[in-house]
Order: sequence, then structure tokens, then C-alpha cells
Amino acid sequence: MNSFGRLFRISIFGESHGASVGVLIDGAPAGIPLSIDDFRDDLVRRGAGTKGTTPRRESDIPKIMSGVFHDTTTGAPLLILFENQDVHSGDYAGFKDTPRPGHADFTAFRKFGGYEDYRGGGHFSGRLTLGLVAAGMLAKKMIAPVNVKGSLIEAGGESDIDKAVDTALKEKDSIGGIVECRITQVPSSLGEPFFDSFESVLSHLVFAIPAIKGIEFGSGFRAAVMKGSEHNDVIISPDGATATNHAGGINGGITNGNEIIFRVAVKPASSIGKAQKTLNIKTERMEDLTVKGRHDACIAIRVPVVVEAAVSIVLADFMLQAQKVSRIINPKNRIY
Amino acid sequence: MNSFGRLFRISIFGESHGASVGVLIDGAPAGIPLSIDDFRDDLVRRGAGTKGTTPRRESDIPKIMSGVFHDTTTGAPLLILFENQDVHSGDYAGFKDTPRPGHADFTAFRKFGGYEDYRGGGHFSGRLTLGLVAAGMLAKKMIAPVNVKGSLIEAGGESDIDKAVDTALKEKDSIGGIVECRITQVPSSLGEPFFDSFESVLSHLVFAIPAIKGIEFGSGFRAAVMKGSEHNDVIISPDGATATNHAGGINGGITNGNEIIFRVAVKPASSIGKAQKTLNIKTERMEDLTVKGRHDACIAIRVPVVVEAAVSIVLADFMLQAQKVSRIINPKNRIY
Amino acid sequence: MNSFGRLFRISIFGESHGASVGVLIDGAPAGIPLSIDDFRDDLVRRGAGTKGTTPRRESDIPKIMSGVFHDTTTGAPLLILFENQDVHSGDYAGFKDTPRPGHADFTAFRKFGGYEDYRGGGHFSGRLTLGLVAAGMLAKKMIAPVNVKGSLIEAGGESDIDKAVDTALKEKDSIGGIVECRITQVPSSLGEPFFDSFESVLSHLVFAIPAIKGIEFGSGFRAAVMKGSEHNDVIISPDGATATNHAGGINGGITNGNEIIFRVAVKPASSIGKAQKTLNIKTERMEDLTVKGRHDACIAIRVPVVVEAAVSIVLADFMLQAQKVSRIINPKNRIY
Amino acid sequence: MNSFGRLFRISIFGESHGASVGVLIDGAPAGIPLSIDDFRDDLVRRGAGTKGTTPRRESDIPKIMSGVFHDTTTGAPLLILFENQDVHSGDYAGFKDTPRPGHADFTAFRKFGGYEDYRGGGHFSGRLTLGLVAAGMLAKKMIAPVNVKGSLIEAGGESDIDKAVDTALKEKDSIGGIVECRITQVPSSLGEPFFDSFESVLSHLVFAIPAIKGIEFGSGFRAAVMKGSEHNDVIISPDGATATNHAGGINGGITNGNEIIFRVAVKPASSIGKAQKTLNIKTERMEDLTVKGRHDACIAIRVPVVVEAAVSIVLADFMLQAQKVSRIINPKNRIY
Repeated sequence: MNSFGRLFRISIFGESHGASVGVLIDGAPAGIPLSIDDFRDDLVRRGAGTKGTTPRRESDIPKIMSGVFHDTTTGAPLLILFENQDVHSGDYAGFKDTPRPGHADFTAFRKFGGYEDYRGGGHFSGRLTLGLVAAGMLAKKMIAPVNVKGSLIEAGGESDIDKAVDTALKEKDSIGGIVECRITQVPSSLGEPFFDSFESVLSHLVFAIPAIKGIEFGSGFRAAVMKGSEHNDVIISPDGATATNHAGGINGGITNGNEIIFRVAVKPASSIGKAQKTLNIKTERMEDLTVKGRHDACIAIRVPVVVEAAVSIVLADFMLQAQKVSRIINPKNRIY
Repeated sequence: MNSFGRLFRISIFGESHGASVGVLIDGAPAGIPLSIDDFRDDLVRRGAGTKGTTPRRESDIPKIMSGVFHDTTTGAPLLILFENQDVHSGDYAGFKDTPRPGHADFTAFRKFGGYEDYRGGGHFSGRLTLGLVAAGMLAKKMIAPVNVKGSLIEAGGESDIDKAVDTALKEKDSIGGIVECRITQVPSSLGEPFFDSFESVLSHLVFAIPAIKGIEFGSGFRAAVMKGSEHNDVIISPDGATATNHAGGINGGITNGNEIIFRVAVKPASSIGKAQKTLNIKTERMEDLTVKGRHDACIAIRVPVVVEAAVSIVLADFMLQAQKVSRIINPKNRIY
Repeated sequence: MNSFGRLFRISIFGESHGASVGVLIDGAPAGIPLSIDDFRDDLVRRGAGTKGTTPRRESDIPKIMSGVFHDTTTGAPLLILFENQDVHSGDYAGFKDTPRPGHADFTAFRKFGGYEDYRGGGHFSGRLTLGLVAAGMLAKKMIAPVNVKGSLIEAGGESDIDKAVDTALKEKDSIGGIVECRITQVPSSLGEPFFDSFESVLSHLVFAIPAIKGIEFGSGFRAAVMKGSEHNDVIISPDGATATNHAGGINGGITNGNEIIFRVAVKPASSIGKAQKTLNIKTERMEDLTVKGRHDACIAIRVPVVVEAAVSIVLADFMLQAQKVSRIINPKNRIY
Repeated sequence: MNSFGRLFRISIFGESHGASVGVLIDGAPAGIPLSIDDFRDDLVRRGAGTKGTTPRRESDIPKIMSGVFHDTTTGAPLLILFENQDVHSGDYAGFKDTPRPGHADFTAFRKFGGYEDYRGGGHFSGRLTLGLVAAGMLAKKMIAPVNVKGSLIEAGGESDIDKAVDTALKEKDSIGGIVECRITQVPSSLGEPFFDSFESVLSHLVFAIPAIKGIEFGSGFRAAVMKGSEHNDVIISPDGATATNHAGGINGGITNGNEIIFRVAVKPASSIGKAQKTLNIKTERMEDLTVKGRHDACIAIRVPVVVEAAVSIVLADFMLQAQKVSRIINPKNRIY
């Protein structure tokens, strides 16, 4: 289903080249100041414009269609709508029968029987993350002063990301990357034993972001080559502070009050300028395919703000459940 | 919450040294042959007895307390109960005030205010995976002929796992490992766009398994250093078969019919024979701690069957949603 | 939360005098023909225009913002949006401090701390049922050939409804009514034992309709004065047909294949032309209140189509769960 | 599914003549004192023993299998198990092919394909309410000092209930009744607009109780014959107190702080001593049927405590969501 969350629940919708994309947000407390301007920074970070990202230009201006009155949340659901404008459907018409390698074109075709909106990935498009980022912005307000910071720490295997992107652009190819996220000032006791462990719920939402192929917490895959005597973090203070942080701030699925650290692997964008082969599902013959459209040489550049959104949404829900966010916010008492 | 799943839903309960552990299974079709013997193989694989795993001996014999009639599922919920017998609570009494490094002792104390059953990890114990494995066995019957195979491919950084365990035992230490899981004969079209992507739902359940610190699908973290032209899997057949399988059988969150491959990182067990330091939460002073109890030198040895269970549970739910498992099984027509 | 359903899930949003109201529909199969015209009949039945209902005029034209391509559902979520046009906020400005008796004004104020959009009931307005009716129309297509028919069988205690409405209009008062709903050609085996009994899930959604104060199935409250020998319906045919139908088509929470019959009590609309008393929550003194705005003398007239929508939505979800609606509809094989 | 609730979630299981019945309770705060004795009063009220109820004798002693340590809840799930002892399966063996009128025998057969445990209603048995009552007892501790009081106000159409039962016993027949429930000291602001209105969620759970055929809140069905000027409750005090209480303590689906009043219709028990007709589903011929077994002449006598349990469970969940119950209970500060 296209919804996520227990007390703070988001539902996304839309298609890359349809009428709109957006998000419906349920469970936000009443009393949070909110205006269109608040969305700008995160949307710009997510958006096109940086070198290595698609030149598609959308104004990406959200419309708040419900749930806000006098620039303040009311406690009712918020519908945030992005109407699509810069739509070049023609670019994609040709791909109907030739599923682009690495994309969801083929799986969408099989799952939805040919009824899917195939233009530009349709409902599977990365453009849907606009809704995630919008919801994440509101969530960040709910969880303050918790700080969530995502960074691209590596692209194409290099820490000089700029150089890696230049090479990819030159080769009409794309590169992947690693995004690291650090969460500070996070309350302890978030997460539940087993099924709703912090890692479980967070990875659930993080894998909803297109192009993510792996996630690791704390020492992550390096933990597999460590010994218990190395990996165990010694508790040194009554507030739970540990001497090391191999666990990445989580024990038994519950936050322990230390910094939360995790990394995600972002695959290279599937759309590339280079010629590729694919099967024509009508003729059942192999064909040459050149994806014109608009591409990201390094989609990972746009991922950090989306990961931050995912984290903030998960934290908002956990903090509501843990009664660490009030159901009514009084702006007289609390500054965002 | 301690439940998971949409149409096939499991709820686990119990404590390491309390009266019982087990699982309540809801949504299993009527008509599946089921007897106590069916559980044996998977429980043995999960259980103690292999070198490198805890010498704790439980008969681990499940009792089916509901939902089965004439050795066949009825369509009503199944309660599978494991009564605890080999309980040495005395071993743990001392740890009440000295949270064991790496364990959930401290986070449990903070979250549940000192009311938690702290004995042997209580509700956070790996013993709770008995319920997962039991539910997984039933799920495997539901998803046949899909084949789910987990293997420990590396321990302590070595492929000679036996040797790595010997070293760890000698050093009174513990080692981690990598478990790989491969799923064959899996239907296409399982998973939903975004929030219920196959990776999302599967990683949600996999991170419920204690000691898991990372997961990657297909090329996983290596995808971050690949180019799009390398990573894209070319579709070569109308059934969706691809020339390579870097995506690990999933595109856009939906299974594409190819083999599903993923790996998880298992940290070294937190309980070790070596002396450690920890904070006494009453005196607020650092203390020496020696965990007597019973330890696993390499907990990862026991993980493959638990991962298989998690996968099978997720598949059972997705296949019910996709109408690829009938709500009533007719044993006359179908052999398990 | 503002969402409902397991496999067919609807989420409503909006405010009476805000930017919009509408519904987000998730889980509809791909392949259902759908155009704006399809909504007209049910929206007209729900809408203003009949004697006894509010003269508020909205074009009530839905916009399909996602999930439809070439006039056919794609399997992705549908956003159906109604932009508000005929908004007289001024009519309501005065009520901010004087909660209207019978309305949600006071409870909304207490629950949302004064941040709620109070204009015309805001998010609590009966106008929100537009989204329900729109989703119900789509659900009706999914459940065909099941027939769902709601009727107003009594208003103000009279079966001559027209006369009862005339009297109410003359008295500047409002009247309640009884709506009966009959469902024919309904499959057996819908509903689950206990928590998701057919009555449970249906009444859950029916009580979401404003002004409903009671529901009864089959003989309903009359069953309380019957004897078992009278009330028991004798099964007379292998398809489950019964000689009588006191159970209203449901046994043990599961449909038995007979006609489903239930009735709901609709209270008189709270907005009336007559002068009333209320408390001014600022001055804490009693005041006279005359609700100008626009009223329904008999809101019950508009309820049948909303009840039909609720029933159809519930049936669509149950029939998906029971695998009696396919996840992909092939219009070549199936006529709506 | 056999589970209910968002933050306080219960799952029931078991069969009338299987190994056990019971309930799994998730989301109860840590720190609630709880011992076996606490269950006694409510179980006795629910149980056999009163004139007019089945002479079946079960010790009905719950076993707490998890979630309690030192007679206090731990925050982990509680499994409450009732092992069946007084099982006369032989009484029911004959009914396999002759579904008892009014019971779920036929619908269970159709839904579960003949795999269902048919003995004494199996999973559909009223015996399953043991789990509800047990969970309700715990919920009552959570919601204190809210007071929930259910009463049988009428049986067989008479207020002299004793006399009505005598007549039914003499006639080997059964009678229905009306149960009224009043909730006092209930916080305002419980319930959500629309789908999770207080009436919606409460009626969902109430209709899970076998034999309930109708529910009405406040004036209920009488509201349908009232005028708005009569039905509207005038607010007379800043705490929300109203001059009348036709709304039954709920406006717009949200509690307004006044007493909550609702009534349910209980049908006559389907099992009667009188001879009946039914269809033999094997021979497809009509047969005479005499239900020996053990019957309740007036099942409604046992319903009040079950309704109280349902109400308390719903309140516990709503109060957790509204942050009116703490996730950790400190017995030093709070007396139950």
C-alpha cells in the first residue's frame, strides 16, 4: 500500500508525467506554523540544478490543499500537491514496448497488466520523492531539536565527488554512491523489540526511496569481521553514553541516546545516455535502446535530503508513540 | 508492536527465562497439513548443539494450542507455544544493575522503567526467534514451490568457518558473519511501489532478527561503485529473465522473476567469556563484568534458518495479497 | 486516523471552507474504466438540490489527479479532488466563540486546541462525504454484480417523507430519519470471525458518516424481544438460502449468501433556523445563537447514497481479501 | 484478522473444544500490578452459574504465559491462556453435517472449506470472549478512574428479567435482551474525525461480540423521530457539560466529556432445547435437529461484562493515543 506510519502516517501518490504528485499527511499535531516558504530549502536540495542531476525543471511549488488554517496546522490531514508542468511525454512514448534496463518498466508492466502509466516511470518515478521530502520537512518541525543530517560521502567509489561526476558525464554513463546519515540529540527508548525495531521501521521507509540497494547501521557490514570484545560498546555514563559507537546508537532495536549512524548504498541511475540492449515485449526480439529523456549522472547527489525526510518521518511517528511530541503544539511555549 | 504482516500476520511473545515463548499466526489458509514433526528440522537448525553455539538445551518442542484440527489448519489463528524448561535464572540475577555491553539490557531498562524481565535478555532474547522459525515453517508450506535457502558464507571474515569458530572459542570471544539468502522459483509482481517495496517489507522483518546490522540486495554496496552501464540488467526473455542479476531479482520494489539474492551482516554475539567493563546503574560506577551464562561464539551459525523464516513469512503475505496462495488449500489438489 | 481499509484503503481530507475536499484511494485494481462522468449520478444524489437539503451550490466536479491513464485505473493510488468554490466563510466567522449545539464545534475546539478550521464545521463537515461517495462509485465497479441499494424509509417518524420535510421547513427546524440498505447477489464467506466480522467493519465505516446514531442488522433491536425458535433462520438449500432472514444475511460475522439488510438512524441536522442557546467559550456566558448559513431540513435525504458508498467500499475490501476481485481487471473479459 | 487496536492491540485465538482459548495483549504499559486474582470478578460475571446460562463448568483460570514479572506488567506482550478442560466433544460430533440454525456452522463450513473445527462452534464460540474479558480487565486498570458500567436492562421484552428467563427455560427456548452501557469520568477529545470516530471504533469491537445485532448511541434510533431543536444538547459549562445528553457524550465522533451512553441488542441464543429443522449438507435433505449440548436460555445475561471489556479496550487505545495514559506506570505515584 502507498501509506506508511502508525500515528504519523503519510500516503504518496502521483505519476511523473500525470497531473500531479504529492503526499497526504495524517497525524500531524495541531499548532505547527507552516507556510509554502518552509518547503523551499529541502525541495531545492532534492531538486534539479546541481551538476550531475537531471536538467528537468519543475517549479516544484507545493500547494497546501487541506489541513492548514492561518498558516498553522489544524490537526486535520494535510494534502500537499505538486502539479506537474514540465512534462515531455513524447520523450517516453517510444519506451512502451521496450522496457528500459534497470527501471521498473518491466515489473510495472507485469504487475499492472499494461494499464500502468509508463511515461517516465509513471508512479515509480523518483519524482514521487517530492511528497516524501515535503512530509519530511513537516516532520523535522515535529522532532526538533533532534538533528538529522544526510551527506553523500562517496560517489563512483571516490570521495572527490565532483571529479567522479565529471567523468560519468563525459562517458554518458551514471555512477552510484554512499549516503551517510547522522542523527543527534535523539531521545533514547525509540523503537520496539522485534518487529518495530528502530532499524526495521527505518529501513522499511528508506528502501522506499528509489535506487537504494543496501543499508547498514553503526559498524554495519564491518561488524561481521569484528570480535565481540571489539564491537561491544561500553556504557560509561548514566545517560547511556558509550565509549565507542559500533552499534550506531541502537541496541535491541531501541535507541540508546547516542548518535545514530547509518549508511545507504545508492545504485547508479538506470537511465544513461549510452546505447543499451533490451527486449521488445511485443516482437519478443532484442533491440537497441537509447534513452533520450533527461538523466541524472549521479542520482545519489539528490538522495541525502530524501533520506533525511525518511528518518524524520520515522522519528516523528516513534516520538508520538513515545509521547515525546504533544498532540497539540502551543507556539507560545515552543519555538521551531 | 509485536505483530507483523497484512494478510499473513504473526505476533511473537515471551521471555528467555519466563514461562514461555511462542508465536500467534493469523491468516494461514485452511487445509494445510500440519503436525509437530513438521517443525523439527528447522528448529534443530536454529537450535543449540552445533559447535560455536550456546550449550543451552531446550527440548524446544512446540505445542499447537489452537488453529489445527485433525492435523490440518482450520483457517483460525494458530498459537504455537514453547514452554521454557532449561531456565537458569540464577546466572542472570547479578546483571540487574550492570547492563551487559552490546545487549539490550540498558535500553530495556530505560524504555520499560525497570519493570522489564531482565533475565537473559527477557523479551529481547534471541530465544524469541523460536516463534519466527515456527511461523516460517508454516509459511514455507504456503509458498511452495518457492525455494528459500539461507547460508552462512563467511564468519569472522573467513570462508573457513570452522576454523574461525575454533579461534573464537579459544579466545573466549565471539565473531560475526555474513548470511546470504537466495530465493528461486519466486513469482514476479510481488511487492508494491514505494512503501511496501519488496526490499522495504523484507528488511523490516529481517532487522527484527537480533544481531543483524546490515542488509544489501543484489550487488548491494558494490552497486555504489558501479556504473549504470554495468549495473543495468538486460532483459533477454519475455518471462523477465535478465542477462545479469545485479538488481537481485527486484526492480522498483517489485520482484522480476529472477533469483532474489540478498546478504545480511550479523554482528558478533554480545555475550563473551572475556572480562568486560560496564556501568553499574545503581552506584553509577564502572565495574568489571564477566558474563557466565551460556554463549554463542558465532551466533551467525544459527541465523540462516531464521532469515529463511523471515523471507518465507514475507513471501506468504505478498503471495496472499497477489492472490497466488488460495485462502483454502485443498490437499486433494495440492501436495506440500 | 483518516484512512480506512486493508487492501482497498481510502483516506479523506479537506475542510468545508478550505481549498478542497477529496479522497485518496489505494488498492484499486488496474484496468477499471473510469471517467469524470461516472461520478455524476452518485454525486447528484448526495448533493444539494432536493427539497429539504441545503441550497449550497457546488459544482462538485471531481478532478482525477493521479492513478488514471487513458480513462482507466492503473493500479496506482487515485487522488480525487474537489476544489471548493461556493464558500461563504463570512457566514461562520461569528461562531468561533459560540459552539453550535449538536455540532462538533466544541469537541474540535477542545481536541485541536483552537487551531482547527472552524468555518462551517471545517474538517468535520458533511461535505467530506464527497470523498466517500467518489470512492464508493469506484468500489461499486469493483464489486459488480453485487447490488447495493439504500433508501430513506422514514423521516421525522413518517413514511410520507415529503410531508414531514414540509412541516420541518415551515417550523425552521430539522428532522431525522431511518435509512435502510439492502445488498443482493452478495458472495458468501465475506467477513472474519470476531474483530473483522462483517458487522464490525461495516459499522466502523457507517459511523464515520456524520449524523448516524445507530445501526441494526437483520431483525436488529427487534431480535431482543424474539425467541430463539422464532429468530433462527432455517437453512433450506445447499447454497445457504434460509426460510426467513432475521440474521440479515450474516452469521458469526460472515455473510451467508442471503440478502444483507441493515438500517441506520440519522439524527436531525444540528443546524436549524430556530434560535438556540449556547455558551460563549470566551466570555463563559450563555448567549442566543441563530445559525444563518445554509441548512438541511432533513439531512437523511442525502444519506442513502453515502451509506451505499460505505457498503461498497467495505465489500470491495472484503472481496479483494477473499480473492473475489482480481488485482488486474481485463475489460475484454469483464463488463461493468 | 483476529487482532484489534492501534497502540493497545489484542489478538484472540482458540476453539470451544480445542486445546485452549485466550488472548495476546500488546501495548500495555510497563508497571501495572497484575495477578491471577485480578481476573476473577470479571470472569465470574462472564461465566456460567447464573440461572439462564449454560451449565458448562470451566475452571476458567487464566495462565499468564508472558509479559508479567514479579506480578507487574513489563511492557512486553501478555499471553493469557485458558486451557479447555470441561470438553464434551461428543455432544457436537453429530452436527458436522447438519448446521445448527442461527449459528456460524454453515458460514464456517463455506468459508473454511470443511477444515474448520466444528465442535461447539469452534473458533466462533462465545467461549472466545474469555480472552476479551481478560484483556478488558487489564484495560480497566489502564483507564482508571474512568468508570464503565454495563447492565442488562431488558430481556425478552421485559424489565423483570428473572421472570422472562423462567418462561424461556420452561419453553426450552431462548430470549434476547438489551444491554446498556454508561461510561463516566471519561476524558473529552477521544476519537478522531470520520473513520476512527468514537462510535466507529467502539461499534467495530462491540460487533465482535457474538449475538450483538444492533447498537445505538445516546438517543439512538429515537433520534430519527426527534427534531433538531429537541435533539441538540445545549452546552452550559466551559468543561463541555450539556443540559441534555441526546448525543450520548459524543459529537463529531469525539467525546465531549459528558457521560457516554449506548445500548446494544442481543439476539436470543441460537442453541435451544426445542426441535428444529435444518438441511443436511451431505444428503441435501431437510432433517430434524435437536441440539443437546449445553445452552444459555438468555445469553444476554453474560453480555454486560463483555461489553465493558470492549469499551475498556477501546478507551485504553484512545487514551494511549491521546497521551492520557503513560507508557510507563509508576506504582509509587499511581494507585489502581
